[in-house]
Amino acid sequence: MNEKLFVGKSASISKTFSIKDVEEFADLSNDKNPVHLDEEFAKSSIFGKRVVHGMLVASLFSGLLGEKLPGKGTIYLGQTLSFTAPVPIGEEVTASVEIINIREDKPIITLRTLCVDSKVNKVIDGEAVVKIF
Amino acid sequence: MNEKLFVGKSASISKTFSIKDVEEFADLSNDKNPVHLDEEFAKSSIFGKRVVHGMLVASLFSGLLGEKLPGKGTIYLGQTLSFTAPVPIGEEVTASVEIINIREDKPIITLRTLCVDSKVNKVIDGEAVVKIF
Repeated sequence: MNEKLFVGKSASISKTFSIKDVEEFADLSNDKNPVHLDEEFAKSSIFGKRVVHGMLVASLFSGLLGEKLPGKGTIYLGQTLSFTAPVPIGEEVTASVEIINIREDKPIITLRTLCVDSKVNKVIDGEAVVKIF
Repeated sequence: MNEKLFVGKSASISKTFSIKDVEEFADLSNDKNPVHLDEEFAKSSIFGKRVVHGMLVASLFSGLLGEKLPGKGTIYLGQTLSFTAPVPIGEEVTASVEIINIREDKPIITLRTLCVDSKVNKVIDGEAVVKIF
């Protein structure tokens, strides 16, 4: 086990998703839900404006896990996600991962995965389980 | 509650993720893990070849929920994901969602979310919770 990994260690990243990001993700995922893509539809929705796909926001966790903590070579085993508030296009969000458990018998780590908006309102909460080499 | 929704109702979609898809998702998610992007690195990894980001494959569930079942206007509340096998770039996968519970008190639906490869090996398993209007 990598000695640099310990419970409480965390990493974070901030990102503002653009209209272009949302349109690219809509193509990749085949999710053309008009609440993401159609200004008029979105205005009349409960959100009142176009919002970023929840799974696109959640993809920041994938980036943090694969790039920063634990980093390269990480194998994604599982993820839970609660989408607790919408993220309007153009709103900066900050995603973070924090180690909450390191198994002693296997190189398997559990991390809390949290994403907040610019007012520090929670937009996604959950946990990731990863294997490291 | 929409009468056309019932336990057991399902929808599916097949997709083959290309190198371009994976590179676009790497930019969107900031996940530049070389197991997705670097042919040489991936060859020497446990996968033996470049694989699609798990969260990109999982995004197909977002598309099914928002487009097909329950469809437009769906609000994503939660998702659990177990990544059980890798998906090589160029491998066709089929994602499906199936209603497993409809709450009687609130317009909230739980669906099993399953993705298999072309040999019907399970690659992702989990559940989604959505709200409908």
